[in-house]
Amino acid sequence: MLIIMRTDANQDEISAIVERVEANGLSAHLSRGTERTIIGAIGDGRPVNRDQFVQLPGVDRVVPISRPYKLASREFRAENSIFPLDGVKVGSDEVVIIAGPCSVESRSQLMETAQAVREAGAHALRGGAYKPRTSPYSFQGLGEEGLELLAEARELTGMPIVTEVMAPEQIPLVTRYADVLQIGARNMQNYALLHAAGECQHSVLLKRGMMATVEELLMSAEYILSHGNRRVLLCERGIRTFENSTRNTTDINAIPVLKSLTHLPVILDPSHSTGHWEYVSAVARAGIAAGADGLIIEVHPNPDVALSDGGQSLKPERFAELVTQVVAVAKAVGRKVAPVHAAESVQAVTAR
Amino acid sequence: MLIIMRTDANQDEISAIVERVEANGLSAHLSRGTERTIIGAIGDGRPVNRDQFVQLPGVDRVVPISRPYKLASREFRAENSIFPLDGVKVGSDEVVIIAGPCSVESRSQLMETAQAVREAGAHALRGGAYKPRTSPYSFQGLGEEGLELLAEARELTGMPIVTEVMAPEQIPLVTRYADVLQIGARNMQNYALLHAAGECQHSVLLKRGMMATVEELLMSAEYILSHGNRRVLLCERGIRTFENSTRNTTDINAIPVLKSLTHLPVILDPSHSTGHWEYVSAVARAGIAAGADGLIIEVHPNPDVALSDGGQSLKPERFAELVTQVVAVAKAVGRKVAPVHAAESVQAVTAR
Amino acid sequence: MLIIMRTDANQDEISAIVERVEANGLSAHLSRGTERTIIGAIGDGRPVNRDQFVQLPGVDRVVPISRPYKLASREFRAENSIFPLDGVKVGSDEVVIIAGPCSVESRSQLMETAQAVREAGAHALRGGAYKPRTSPYSFQGLGEEGLELLAEARELTGMPIVTEVMAPEQIPLVTRYADVLQIGARNMQNYALLHAAGECQHSVLLKRGMMATVEELLMSAEYILSHGNRRVLLCERGIRTFENSTRNTTDINAIPVLKSLTHLPVILDPSHSTGHWEYVSAVARAGIAAGADGLIIEVHPNPDVALSDGGQSLKPERFAELVTQVVAVAKAVGRKVAPVHAAESVQAVTAR
Amino acid sequence: MLIIMRTDANQDEISAIVERVEANGLSAHLSRGTERTIIGAIGDGRPVNRDQFVQLPGVDRVVPISRPYKLASREFRAENSIFPLDGVKVGSDEVVIIAGPCSVESRSQLMETAQAVREAGAHALRGGAYKPRTSPYSFQGLGEEGLELLAEARELTGMPIVTEVMAPEQIPLVTRYADVLQIGARNMQNYALLHAAGECQHSVLLKRGMMATVEELLMSAEYILSHGNRRVLLCERGIRTFENSTRNTTDINAIPVLKSLTHLPVILDPSHSTGHWEYVSAVARAGIAAGADGLIIEVHPNPDVALSDGGQSLKPERFAELVTQVVAVAKAVGRKVAPVHAAESVQAVTAR
Repeated sequence: MLIIMRTDANQDEISAIVERVEANGLSAHLSRGTERTIIGAIGDGRPVNRDQFVQLPGVDRVVPISRPYKLASREFRAENSIFPLDGVKVGSDEVVIIAGPCSVESRSQLMETAQAVREAGAHALRGGAYKPRTSPYSFQGLGEEGLELLAEARELTGMPIVTEVMAPEQIPLVTRYADVLQIGARNMQNYALLHAAGECQHSVLLKRGMMATVEELLMSAEYILSHGNRRVLLCERGIRTFENSTRNTTDINAIPVLKSLTHLPVILDPSHSTGHWEYVSAVARAGIAAGADGLIIEVHPNPDVALSDGGQSLKPERFAELVTQVVAVAKAVGRKVAPVHAAESVQAVTAR
Repeated sequence: MLIIMRTDANQDEISAIVERVEANGLSAHLSRGTERTIIGAIGDGRPVNRDQFVQLPGVDRVVPISRPYKLASREFRAENSIFPLDGVKVGSDEVVIIAGPCSVESRSQLMETAQAVREAGAHALRGGAYKPRTSPYSFQGLGEEGLELLAEARELTGMPIVTEVMAPEQIPLVTRYADVLQIGARNMQNYALLHAAGECQHSVLLKRGMMATVEELLMSAEYILSHGNRRVLLCERGIRTFENSTRNTTDINAIPVLKSLTHLPVILDPSHSTGHWEYVSAVARAGIAAGADGLIIEVHPNPDVALSDGGQSLKPERFAELVTQVVAVAKAVGRKVAPVHAAESVQAVTAR
Repeated sequence: MLIIMRTDANQDEISAIVERVEANGLSAHLSRGTERTIIGAIGDGRPVNRDQFVQLPGVDRVVPISRPYKLASREFRAENSIFPLDGVKVGSDEVVIIAGPCSVESRSQLMETAQAVREAGAHALRGGAYKPRTSPYSFQGLGEEGLELLAEARELTGMPIVTEVMAPEQIPLVTRYADVLQIGARNMQNYALLHAAGECQHSVLLKRGMMATVEELLMSAEYILSHGNRRVLLCERGIRTFENSTRNTTDINAIPVLKSLTHLPVILDPSHSTGHWEYVSAVARAGIAAGADGLIIEVHPNPDVALSDGGQSLKPERFAELVTQVVAVAKAVGRKVAPVHAAESVQAVTAR
Repeated sequence: MLIIMRTDANQDEISAIVERVEANGLSAHLSRGTERTIIGAIGDGRPVNRDQFVQLPGVDRVVPISRPYKLASREFRAENSIFPLDGVKVGSDEVVIIAGPCSVESRSQLMETAQAVREAGAHALRGGAYKPRTSPYSFQGLGEEGLELLAEARELTGMPIVTEVMAPEQIPLVTRYADVLQIGARNMQNYALLHAAGECQHSVLLKRGMMATVEELLMSAEYILSHGNRRVLLCERGIRTFENSTRNTTDINAIPVLKSLTHLPVILDPSHSTGHWEYVSAVARAGIAAGADGLIIEVHPNPDVALSDGGQSLKPERFAELVTQVVAVAKAVGRKVAPVHAAESVQAVTAR
């Protein structure tokens, strides 16, 4: 941390800062410029409250030097963290594709979607049983019944399940059914939930809040990591800007930035980051070209009757085209999309 | 809801939309322009999922007409909702002032602050026992011990208590100690928490998320209202923009906009919306001039040793000046800041 | 300027930075922390290109210390710059009110508005002869004919004229008619125009770009100041954010921030910063309460037939109410709105 | 255009709107919902001022239906506009690569860069002779001397020249030297400049303003098109958001959105849209994967001594790697980067 003094700061004010720095167990190092004095606080400043210096007389501003996260950083762990999912080594040169409906709506809708995305090449199935909805009057999800259907779809197709948890008390139930817990954008800074997710041992797909900086996303990952769970996948899902021709703005820069700052895998959600099915494939290709470790895509057999997010869901045949395109782009950048082997146990839903 | 067709939409596509509108229990009304046809869906469209129309052939876009919230709207209730707090009728022409430290840190810190803000004219005491912090390594609040200290401060000064809840399971405990539950900006779309707050009967101070639109704030209020709790105070606390000379950007426009759209009281938090003590008074005056029903202000006896938010906390003497200024501005706009009568029970902390 | 090294930077890399700093005529000062080394470049770093250090091996990032503007800063000039306008000392405790139509549309429209705003208490008349319009198909202004009408309105009412220039080659013409040159938000970084405005001696009302930071606004002012023109008034007119219930977001924080950073007067334009007449008065009051030195307000006798910005223009009677409210708020914050004395020369337009 | 009435609008108010619609030469069509009446204005509403309806009694809001641009739209011209540049058909399945230094700094710097980027596969040379700089104290470009050096580089390498114009009066001079005029982000809404560019017949590379919406970019293109110049290339160069780990946020969504809305070619500038050399290649690949028609890249032989934008410039060898990667990604998405044939006239600079 550096404390930058005002141009008119006097010696007493400077001395007071030095004392305060030392009182925090750090050592102070003065640099006197032609206009200002700068005081460096040397030592591990992470546990020290920077705000304490802001109001002291003579201080202009305080500049942090160390990154505020540690376990999530490349400096802590240089090589990529790699987590297996359905035989794909997520975080390696293998690209993972997660697909499925926004919400679990019915048995037939889910089984039909699951089989279609599996055939098209998806490695894992997404689907929400608990839905965070802006309106209290909208469909809120099937709850435990949805979880049971997801488990049935796993049995049918062999695909692991990714589904959202919205509150700490849901975790014991959801972990009985799901393989990966999703923490949604609106809950990225729900610290009670992050804390609880950090204490379980399921993989967590942590979505970036729509207003969150890359650094804040990493701080939320740090919450989970610091409570003992090392299996965190980061997900870019679009941020909120003034542009209104799409629902959100895909922060494609965040992909190489995150790959540079952290060892954790980075997944792109082009369905939410565009909000419109017509743009999903283009942005999915872009994500893989930029270095993302995987994709999470909304697919629905009949998007026009979907109970949520129909406007951004792909029909199964469009999803199959997307996978073909992504396979080509992945190859062009020296990566690969692992093929899926249709599970022995896959049977027609109607036969059950 | 209006469904705007593409310029090249054909008659079959138009007929399909009309059928779909009617299948949703609405009636369809066609308006054929020189370039396009527009289909109005007549009836209460709130429970109808708009997304279902977006992917139908020939559709350009869908425009909502009704506001998505109902109980929170001025159209539902034309006159201001007024809630009593410490004898102030919040939402009337009386302006309420809530003040106190960001976090409850110690008995002496809290009692000293409580007495100082009471003497300066505050009507209620704020203070966090559970703190949402970006970093897992920062001070997380005193928890129940903090709640006990808040209750003691209430006894000492006569001021009602405003304090944050972060998870549904904290509500039973917090409501035993607090008069007003605060839902923080990061939890504005924590629907499990909104649901739970809607089922209790304590007043709720609902802070706008730093990326939330005014409409989304009202939708979050609608969650609480629709679960039966009508005592919601809205709080503007700054939004996130590209401007970086302040921590957030105070959306001063939101004050008259909210006063126009809703009957609920509107409180401004200039401490968070500026992030710097030097600007708090100017923006507090602006808020009252713009029509806010009250203020919530961070005050700390020694901001430079505060465990959180020291940079934006006012010292008690600066807070007293702020109150004097606000009293003058309130008068200039035809409102008043109710005087507080020092409670009989107020005693020196040191005497206890 | 501080050059912050990577945690893995080696001694050769550090030495190379030191040499480069010295090659730029600055002296280098090393501060070795437990994790990183920081190199301070001591001397006037303004003319030095910071980018040169970013790509050198071992560099993490470069932090500027000096503010990039000089002539505009409070550090250069501690006391307020005060410019007279119609007898008001703008920048002192006197508040100036500038009002008039968005565009000059016709002789009768302008004269009627000018007389109405003068009677209501305005000190200067605004009105556009050259209009920056988003669409090439919209009304582009009356050009020189509009300037002649403005001069006639000045003669009629005694009010000085504020009008926009859009290109360097318009300046000789516009300065023949106008008292204050306005540089619009879209041209805030039109450097050819800033340069030309800096070489004339008319006062300049410089509007903040809708995406510009406070620092960039000050840098644009610095362009004008550095070319010799010291008469710059800054104007906050709203910034672009994700919020869409208003056309722009009034950055009310920018008022105290600018008053702290610069000696130049600060004017608020609540017509553009809200984009809706219904909210103009509330935000005008807020601006004065926050410390603005004046207001610029759009007024039109018949907003519903205005050729531009009708939605945000006030009718004369609403403007008169606004002035009354602003007079009260100014008084409450220890300032005053100077009364205007109807010019001897004011005559009925119809008599001419 | 649709005029949406308030829920409490009465019949007289509705009738007044209908009259006003008809007075504008449009016909009115009423749609009475259960809560509100909506009035459709039928006919070409582009020349009609929507603002006139906003203040009429009983009006809630006005919704535009037609897109405000015409010549730039896909509805006006369904097939892609294709412009030849150095033998590449820009806008077809061929991808164009423009590269060169931010600023022309010296003869040796420019010739070295030009030869290097040509050898690596660039089709055109960029380089600024007139530089829009935030600070009046920064290097402002070599002016006409820079243009002469660009012409010399063209002769040397055979590459056409892309360079910026900052003011209408520069156009006659710049068109004598350049093949493509660049209009920079800060001038995207400099209407005097757009007007002048529309009257010349050079191709124009129009950069999106850092705060501009996609629709506004298209409106600025419409200015140029409507003045007679049909050769407009659009350039996405990043927008300003709250994210601060990169200089701007690349709006990758804008690539497919623009390709859907307009027939004009779309170029991506990953140097500015990231602001950091380390991320340029990843985002360049993403742009081509998303469907961009080309790239414009900053290259400098010694970025650490560049007079501007050194932090985001690539060294020639990194640029060569970028081209190799882009060739592979273009192929993966069914496009191609045309090879360049080293011009006969290419000679060693040192030989001159």
